[in-house]
Order: sequence, then C-alpha cells, then structure tokens
Amino acid sequence: MDKLILIVNDDGWQAQGIKVLSRIASDIGQVVVVAPDQGRSGAACGITPGTPVIVEKIPATQAHGQGYGPDVTVYSCTGTPVDCVKIALEKILPHTPDMVLSGINHGDNASISLFYSGTVGAVVEACLKGIPSIAFSLRTHSRQCDFTPYEHVIRHWTEKVAAQGLPPGTCLNINFPEVSELKGTSICRMARGKWHTEWVEADTRTPNVECTTGDTQAYTLSGTFVNLEPEAQDTDYWALDHGMASVTPLKPDMTDYAVLSHCR
Amino acid sequence: MDKLILIVNDDGWQAQGIKVLSRIASDIGQVVVVAPDQGRSGAACGITPGTPVIVEKIPATQAHGQGYGPDVTVYSCTGTPVDCVKIALEKILPHTPDMVLSGINHGDNASISLFYSGTVGAVVEACLKGIPSIAFSLRTHSRQCDFTPYEHVIRHWTEKVAAQGLPPGTCLNINFPEVSELKGTSICRMARGKWHTEWVEADTRTPNVECTTGDTQAYTLSGTFVNLEPEAQDTDYWALDHGMASVTPLKPDMTDYAVLSHCR
Repeated sequence: MDKLILIVNDDGWQAQGIKVLSRIASDIGQVVVVAPDQGRSGAACGITPGTPVIVEKIPATQAHGQGYGPDVTVYSCTGTPVDCVKIALEKILPHTPDMVLSGINHGDNASISLFYSGTVGAVVEACLKGIPSIAFSLRTHSRQCDFTPYEHVIRHWTEKVAAQGLPPGTCLNINFPEVSELKGTSICRMARGKWHTEWVEADTRTPNVECTTGDTQAYTLSGTFVNLEPEAQDTDYWALDHGMASVTPLKPDMTDYAVLSHCR
Repeated sequence: MDKLILIVNDDGWQAQGIKVLSRIASDIGQVVVVAPDQGRSGAACGITPGTPVIVEKIPATQAHGQGYGPDVTVYSCTGTPVDCVKIALEKILPHTPDMVLSGINHGDNASISLFYSGTVGAVVEACLKGIPSIAFSLRTHSRQCDFTPYEHVIRHWTEKVAAQGLPPGTCLNINFPEVSELKGTSICRMARGKWHTEWVEADTRTPNVECTTGDTQAYTLSGTFVNLEPEAQDTDYWALDHGMASVTPLKPDMTDYAVLSHCR
C-alpha cells in the first residue's frame, strides 16, 4: 500500500518550498498538504485556543495552477503549523500518516532558532503524536530560490525514514546552507547561540499602529545571531557555515535529567 | 543592592496570577512587569516577525488601581510572552535582571503542555539569554482563584534562586494542583502524555467567521489529556494528581543525544 505523507510548513501553502517538498514526496507516497493560509513564521509550537480555526480544501484546479502535482490534495488552514498537524490527524486524513514532513522553510532553523520555528513546531507535534517526522529548512530568506542542490538529500532522508521509521520520540531537523553544491551532510547537535540587538524602533505612525500616549513605543523584531561555539565542529551551525547539510535528531523532552539526578 | 526581577506571563498583565506573583517577588527585589496586553495562552516560544510590537507603560495610578503594589512598574505589550522578555531585556530594564519569573498561569503546564505554553516559553527565552528563570502554573482555569496555598512554595523557590542562581542552561517549571493544602513538593521530570479529541466542529456562522465554500469547515480547539505513564511516580503529572507541587528542571536543548551518539 502507498505510504500516506502529510506535509505542512509555516510559510503558507502557496510558498515555493512546500511545493518542492510535495513534488519530491509524491514519488514516495500519497501526499496531503495541510498548511497555513498565510505566513506564520515564528509560531513555534503555538496553538490557537478560543478562536475558530478554518480549514478550506483548495480546488484541484487552483492547487494545480499554483504548481502542485495532480495527485496532491491541498488544504489551507487559518491556524498555526501545530494546528495544521492536529487538524490533519483528527479531521482530514483517512488514517494516521506514515510520515509528516515540514518545510522547506525559507530561512534556516538551526541552533536556538528551532525554538521559535513553526516549521520545527509542526514536526515536534507529529513526534508527540508518535509519527516519524522531518523538518527541512534552507538558509535563505528569498521567496524565490533554487532548491535543486538539496533535492537528493531531501529524497534520501524521506525515503530512509519512510522505509525504516525513526526511534520513538525522535524527529529530525534538517537544514541546508545556500550553496550551488553541498559539501556533504553532518549528523550533529544544535549549536549554543544567541540573538542580540533584536528590536528596531518602529514608527508609530505606521498604518494600523496607534500611538496612544507619550509612554507608548513600537518596535519591530530584527536581530543578529551569534554562534556561541564557532569552533565546535559537531554543531548544525558549523555544518551550515561549511557548506554542509545539517541533520539534527531532536527529542521533545525538555527535562534537564542531569540537574534532576543531582537534586535527588 | 536590590535584586532586579522581571515578571511576565501569558494571561495578560491584568490577570490575577501575575499580580500575586509580583506581590510575592516585591519582598525579594525590585519588580518590573512586562506582560501581554491580553491573553496569549498557547503562544509557546512564538515571536512576532514583521508586525510592530507596541509597548505601553501603564500609569502608576492605573496599575495600583488594578491591584499592583506601589513599587511595581507595569508595561503592557502587544507581542507574545517571548517578545515581552526580549523587549524588556533590550529596551526597558536598566540592566540585566537577576531573575525572570513567569505566571502564575491559570491552567497547568505539566507534561507536554509545556511545549504549547507561553508561560514556559518566556522562561525558556530568559534561560537562552542566560538568566535564572522560573515558570509558575496552577491547575485551574478559573479566572478568580485562591493562590494562598501555593505562596510559601513560590516564595521558597524565588528566594532560593535569587540567592543561589540556577545551573547555566537550566530553568524551572513549577506547577500546582488546585488544593487547599499542598501535600509536599516533588522534584520530577515531565510525564509522557498525549492530547486527543482536540477539535470540535465550530459554527461557521460565528461572527467574524466567513464560510466561503462548501469545502470550508471551522473547528475550535478543545481536547482531553492522557498521562501515558500514570504509574510512574517521578513525573510532574503524578505529583499534581497526588496533591503535590511539581518542580521540573528544564533544559532548552532539544538535541536527542542518545540517538546522535548511536548514529555516529
């Protein structure tokens, strides 16, 4: 029987990366896309309590016109990437999928950026539900970019996980540098890093931003990332900085077992 | 010199829990509150890229009228809990705070719920910035509740962390059951758990929800939590189910080191 593959992202169902991913995955199984109706970058593992989330099945002709293959079914969802996974599993798919793929994100999700990432949030959710899952991200913020140099790596890991699964409680976070040819793949940990100088004073006269009193100030998120261990060769950041794909196994359990055993 | 303590939450600066927390913390140091302007439950580690975030200093008389002590400065922020921490550190506080406290959340954040929690997201952010931080949550969803039974535990851990700090890269997730008297405190790991039956068909005629085609359906998030290891006595869920406070050390590093070493 065909594998059933759910694909999600945080850039929205119309983004280029998710179409490339769905095309590659279509060679491996039956693909259903359930993705945000618009960009939800920075949504992390966020969910939408209290507000109805709307799911719309995109007509096949429209999805095809947007560049999806004829065998791919596409749903647009007003919720977060995690909402997309939850709704797909409970309300859309005919049975539990064999795999959940997320991305390809426009922008890397290496080091601590994975905590803010909706792309990674979606695979964490799939992992918590016991489904093998992989997040793919490319270090670029261009909306139009060439994913060709990474396709063989995406295909390799997708086929491998489709065939073998993943250890229970483990998902994968795969990142690519923006290069014309990858220098290899590094299986590695997330780097320790820090974002700094993250806020720029915004003009409160921006449309839709009301300046109510002199004590009000608007800021826009920006920032610079610093790898706190640039010499360490076993990190995702090192791999990306050296032209390699990074493959980081993630475990959605934040318990600090070292400290815990010390406290007992 | 007085300790400087930043307090944040995800229920908004007007919630009851954050006022209780700021009153307790005021006995230990100088308190500044930077919290969402409204409820942001389920925001996880989410951030707000692309849209200006507005910070407003609440006039002292208004904050005092809302139940804050005279020495507490309160800022309202349109961003997520993580945005609140980031903006406080970079734009509001005179220097790096000695501690970040988050909560007291209305609703527990034990087991996997911590991944969705804005309350926990805020302490993860503080931890990534190297600041000792503690999240406090109470297993209730009542807006008005009695926090008295938990105050001595909050005071104990806040004073302890103020005096001793925490190991670098570790933060604390503290949860309380809703009881008139705690049976003790358990230092424990997060339980493995699962949310199921998470979506209820919503009426698409709800105001602000437009039903565009027959292929559109609205859902509202709900769900039931199941502890997947109810017999294990070393988990946060077991502690809460047995009338105890749970104290779980968290480490914001999702790398699955066991799988990583196996792959090499």
